[in-house]
Amino acid sequence: MAKKKLNIGMVGYGFMGRAHSNAFSQVSNFFQLQHEPVLKAACARDQGKLKAFADQWGYESTESDWRKLVERKDIDVIDIAASNDMHLEIAIAAAEAGKIVMCEKPLGRNAAESAKMVAAVEKAKVPNMVWYNYRRVPAVTLAKQLIDEGKLGKIFHYRAKFLQDWTISADLPQGGQGLWRLDVNVAGSGVTGDLLAHCIDTAMWLNGGIDKVIGLTETFIKEREHNLTGKKEPVGIDDASLFLARFSNGSLANFEATRYARGHKALYTLEINGEKASIMWDLHDLHRLQYFDHRDEGRTRGWRSIHVTDGDHPYMAKWWVPGLQIGYEHSFIHQVADFIEGLETGKPAAPTFREAMATDVVTDAVLKSARTGQWENISA
Amino acid sequence: MAKKKLNIGMVGYGFMGRAHSNAFSQVSNFFQLQHEPVLKAACARDQGKLKAFADQWGYESTESDWRKLVERKDIDVIDIAASNDMHLEIAIAAAEAGKIVMCEKPLGRNAAESAKMVAAVEKAKVPNMVWYNYRRVPAVTLAKQLIDEGKLGKIFHYRAKFLQDWTISADLPQGGQGLWRLDVNVAGSGVTGDLLAHCIDTAMWLNGGIDKVIGLTETFIKEREHNLTGKKEPVGIDDASLFLARFSNGSLANFEATRYARGHKALYTLEINGEKASIMWDLHDLHRLQYFDHRDEGRTRGWRSIHVTDGDHPYMAKWWVPGLQIGYEHSFIHQVADFIEGLETGKPAAPTFREAMATDVVTDAVLKSARTGQWENISA
Amino acid sequence: MAKKKLNIGMVGYGFMGRAHSNAFSQVSNFFQLQHEPVLKAACARDQGKLKAFADQWGYESTESDWRKLVERKDIDVIDIAASNDMHLEIAIAAAEAGKIVMCEKPLGRNAAESAKMVAAVEKAKVPNMVWYNYRRVPAVTLAKQLIDEGKLGKIFHYRAKFLQDWTISADLPQGGQGLWRLDVNVAGSGVTGDLLAHCIDTAMWLNGGIDKVIGLTETFIKEREHNLTGKKEPVGIDDASLFLARFSNGSLANFEATRYARGHKALYTLEINGEKASIMWDLHDLHRLQYFDHRDEGRTRGWRSIHVTDGDHPYMAKWWVPGLQIGYEHSFIHQVADFIEGLETGKPAAPTFREAMATDVVTDAVLKSARTGQWENISA
Amino acid sequence: MAKKKLNIGMVGYGFMGRAHSNAFSQVSNFFQLQHEPVLKAACARDQGKLKAFADQWGYESTESDWRKLVERKDIDVIDIAASNDMHLEIAIAAAEAGKIVMCEKPLGRNAAESAKMVAAVEKAKVPNMVWYNYRRVPAVTLAKQLIDEGKLGKIFHYRAKFLQDWTISADLPQGGQGLWRLDVNVAGSGVTGDLLAHCIDTAMWLNGGIDKVIGLTETFIKEREHNLTGKKEPVGIDDASLFLARFSNGSLANFEATRYARGHKALYTLEINGEKASIMWDLHDLHRLQYFDHRDEGRTRGWRSIHVTDGDHPYMAKWWVPGLQIGYEHSFIHQVADFIEGLETGKPAAPTFREAMATDVVTDAVLKSARTGQWENISA
Repeated sequence: MAKKKLNIGMVGYGFMGRAHSNAFSQVSNFFQLQHEPVLKAACARDQGKLKAFADQWGYESTESDWRKLVERKDIDVIDIAASNDMHLEIAIAAAEAGKIVMCEKPLGRNAAESAKMVAAVEKAKVPNMVWYNYRRVPAVTLAKQLIDEGKLGKIFHYRAKFLQDWTISADLPQGGQGLWRLDVNVAGSGVTGDLLAHCIDTAMWLNGGIDKVIGLTETFIKEREHNLTGKKEPVGIDDASLFLARFSNGSLANFEATRYARGHKALYTLEINGEKASIMWDLHDLHRLQYFDHRDEGRTRGWRSIHVTDGDHPYMAKWWVPGLQIGYEHSFIHQVADFIEGLETGKPAAPTFREAMATDVVTDAVLKSARTGQWENISA
Repeated sequence: MAKKKLNIGMVGYGFMGRAHSNAFSQVSNFFQLQHEPVLKAACARDQGKLKAFADQWGYESTESDWRKLVERKDIDVIDIAASNDMHLEIAIAAAEAGKIVMCEKPLGRNAAESAKMVAAVEKAKVPNMVWYNYRRVPAVTLAKQLIDEGKLGKIFHYRAKFLQDWTISADLPQGGQGLWRLDVNVAGSGVTGDLLAHCIDTAMWLNGGIDKVIGLTETFIKEREHNLTGKKEPVGIDDASLFLARFSNGSLANFEATRYARGHKALYTLEINGEKASIMWDLHDLHRLQYFDHRDEGRTRGWRSIHVTDGDHPYMAKWWVPGLQIGYEHSFIHQVADFIEGLETGKPAAPTFREAMATDVVTDAVLKSARTGQWENISA
Repeated sequence: MAKKKLNIGMVGYGFMGRAHSNAFSQVSNFFQLQHEPVLKAACARDQGKLKAFADQWGYESTESDWRKLVERKDIDVIDIAASNDMHLEIAIAAAEAGKIVMCEKPLGRNAAESAKMVAAVEKAKVPNMVWYNYRRVPAVTLAKQLIDEGKLGKIFHYRAKFLQDWTISADLPQGGQGLWRLDVNVAGSGVTGDLLAHCIDTAMWLNGGIDKVIGLTETFIKEREHNLTGKKEPVGIDDASLFLARFSNGSLANFEATRYARGHKALYTLEINGEKASIMWDLHDLHRLQYFDHRDEGRTRGWRSIHVTDGDHPYMAKWWVPGLQIGYEHSFIHQVADFIEGLETGKPAAPTFREAMATDVVTDAVLKSARTGQWENISA
Repeated sequence: MAKKKLNIGMVGYGFMGRAHSNAFSQVSNFFQLQHEPVLKAACARDQGKLKAFADQWGYESTESDWRKLVERKDIDVIDIAASNDMHLEIAIAAAEAGKIVMCEKPLGRNAAESAKMVAAVEKAKVPNMVWYNYRRVPAVTLAKQLIDEGKLGKIFHYRAKFLQDWTISADLPQGGQGLWRLDVNVAGSGVTGDLLAHCIDTAMWLNGGIDKVIGLTETFIKEREHNLTGKKEPVGIDDASLFLARFSNGSLANFEATRYARGHKALYTLEINGEKASIMWDLHDLHRLQYFDHRDEGRTRGWRSIHVTDGDHPYMAKWWVPGLQIGYEHSFIHQVADFIEGLETGKPAAPTFREAMATDVVTDAVLKSARTGQWENISA
């Protein structure tokens, strides 16, 4: 049976442009879907780099202006993998043009931007999704299953960290390709929007809404040369961001993200402690889930290191055989698979723009709290 | 050469009474010191249990009233291993009687009590020490060495947790033997004084003073039967306590303690991230230190799991051979060894009462901050 | 610049058919090569399953008879991913037809078969390669680099195991799709050719030739229903196979493979101990390499857990960013990349048929030794 | 109630002399027994070192000739912690003198010596025991419980290694204090009697008798200066020893010991794979037991890391509280406790001389097999 084409218009060619393109390329080889993504057009300003990218990934065409891309009749999906400052304008235009819109996280540079994007896609009634890919690491999805089945019982604690060390050197400039995450005007914030946003999205998915937060942030390096001006400029982003929180279910939470934790490249860890069982997960060994069940017989009770590679684990029946791990990129493939399935069943895959906006509300509150030194309530 | 006797008068026979007695018993078998502790007298109210304890450990005599013990001429050291509410009175009396005073942590139920005890020992000019034993786990002492040598460079982050799960059942009563830690009048506080105090003591030893804190506490079980009244009584302690902090050296800190983290028995973990190197330690594998050194060649850089059992590791030349681990109790033996050496050299072993009081100042601030919702400054 | 097409003719559609197809599909997205593999034709007897496979992976055509495939002018490469009993005939025909020949491991069901295949490809002078994919797991390739640089010094010990548990049930039948590995006529042997072959290939690559072996094998379940006859038939394969060996460099070796190690899905581990340093690797966490360097300063010496995801690690610059792991399937992609590069540079990628035959010589000796109870010498 | 004295006469003051003395010193503080060991007399040739040892440990007296010690009426137990070449003569004399005899492992330098010692203690009907202490590491004792309860089902595989790295340097001399383990005349053999003996004792305790073995040994450094002659002398011991074996229950075994495994100080590991469950243990983290139970629900099945520190774990109710680990030396304390309990109940603690002799039979067979290159049967 011939599959329906789903023509992708990609904006951006960087790290996320590659991760998304790979997901679109591979999904049909592993998942049985009625739609098949087609890499129709890639769009960016730098035509040299764009051409190389498009050639490598087999895009059928290129565009230099995203407005052109949005207008093209042969494009079904606008996928926004450009820097954060581009999300707002492109997403609204794409929605208005009736396109399916997919957007890299965080949705906006702040919740106000996100609200406008939510309004646009909801007004246009177009399918939409934000790439919070970690929900679809099989071990994390398994955690969700176990929690939803009630295996943990009442929840007391949630704990998440995202630790990196790649910006410790004071010689690293800010701004421009690959380094726009250090430029507050482009990124919106530092680790709060970049790393904590992931932690918060997963946390609210697993443990429900957050009621209030108190934050603490720091910018360790106050000035960095800016790639666009060639001059030392103040650094506006947060290098580290910590916050305590209360979830609506009464549990206490502890979040932390930093790019100054020497020895950790991308160590996203999460832990959730329930009355009956607890769960831990760690991005550096993303194919494992640690699970402790108090109901096990006393003498042999211990943390179970689950190698999440069996056919009865989420998504894993699609891949190889037990014991053979998949990697980071597969979370994106799963997200595309679920998104397409959502199109076909009419049950949209999460997180939609609206769901993703909830994370931006929390990150805004964390940043505000860090400035004021006060607890900030999250209005639902 | 005959050793000088150091006659110990022990108050208490519980968990800590045993741990201290063991330390006094063993130290002479492993360390070359001029003084030899002698288990001279044990003191407690319950004479049946006291007798069994004294027999087991070979105490030469018993006392039912600590005031009698303090008055005895044949006692050199009063070691306070009784519940927290007893520390103040005994310590002051012991100091006034000119005894050496050792006290289980936390020093007081609050900093005000501690200040009185500090004043007493300093006025009496008697040697004094508080049993923050974790400083003398060889892996932790090694961490101190590496930090003091500058191996980590500028410090960005400090992180510590102390997670337990033994009070989750609502059927557990409060008060009385073994359970006084749940009675706020006896303990002073919950996990803040019991568990966080350990974390704070180590942290300030390794990373210097703390400037300010913001805390969050919770009592998950609001009422528990009280062993003394036989009735349900409100629970006054904190079951969980989290705080963010800033150290004087500019580093950011994240502390958490709870007795509701299912799956963790006594998981005290600490991590310190510096510009050049980082360190992690974990009480559940206390004989290991994790060390990451960014100066290692790039391809082979990784967290080193140091099995701290070699002769060039702190204290380990006194024990067995490389590869053979020691346990929890040895930290107390090391503390006695260092304390006696301090008596002999005139350089008192840390932490003295004054140093230990600094921890109580921080725990007070954490608890106050949790009540007020405000950042609290730590006055030096 | 337009890439040259490399038209693939795939024989087989099972686990390995998928792994190879995936490698051909993805290699051009990540590696800069002048040739681009094209999934031209897939071939198998079962036309229903073949059609589904070809559709899923986008093969342009199908064939039901491998002889037809071999004769097709539009095919450049014959890739043999069929069961072991098919390798000999197809490989020889493909070589005689002047095709590039790639063959899943083990090359033959025994060394005699392998020798014929080697003769055929060498006579025909066609490029050839056997899919010993584990050499191209980045952590294993890194091990090879470190050994070749002399970092380990003189080698004393080599140790490898491949432990599985999927055939423990006596109800599992033998023969037919997915289970031909239990049928000795099809597979040639059990874990010796299936699992130990991997261990031996890596070992000889890392540590040189093997001089002699002494083996021990066992078939725990003596009879299993055969899927083709529907009757209980004797089991001819080895369920477990252990051997001791001496390498030509004087080091001692210990190898073991089994499908009866409850709790292990595909735990291939290897360790090599040298005078100055040692290395350990483990397929269940394939993105890590454990490295111990005795030259490190004594107090901070420990096994380093290297997260092999940095740009200076083998192959990793082609993938994502530090900290983000790749998976099992990537080893095949790397092998295709190296093979194509070998075609372009004229330096054939290893292992060729001739190199792979050396492994079959060792597995034959292990099986013979297990029968005779005698040490068997490996003739070079 | 007054305890009966059990007067210890200790021969030797080295590593094992200390470990045994510590066990005798501490047992009464933790275990409720009717007998109390008393450190009555220590004996050795070097009077200076002996005096220091006796002073440190509080021995009441010393002897320079073990014959004198054996003759003393006030001695109940002769504990042999001297080098292996002394075991035979002392044990026989002690038995003939009617003493309880305890002997460090291995019992004899070979099984012939052991047989004479067994004959002597059995003729004299004196209680006797060999210090195979690892049986009493709580995690290992727990493994024994689980196996005896049938939790593992039919056993397929047993695997043990004991890896060290302390003799790699060619500059290390042989012979004399601390180095007699390198002198074959004193030690009897190298790692086979020193390290493999431990592995074999535990293995036969957990998994029953061994039927046959095939061994491979190596002496990497052929000559070392001898401390007694001051000259280079041939090295007679085995530096490394590997063997394959079959147990009487049909399981296959793989044993290895070496002092040339760079990075491992004293890594004794064991693993046992059963039809239903498997167990792993490791001396470098001796307070943990790894346990995999196939009966766990599929999705959450994984290796459980059991922190063997709870009150329902073997021996642990005597120590501290859950989560607080004990160390290496405690296995000796447990052995003394069990031995005394055996005296009191009339059920002798294992292993007796006779049981320990079985290990020497196996080590002899391993060494013989390594010489002949033939499988050696173990006569029951």
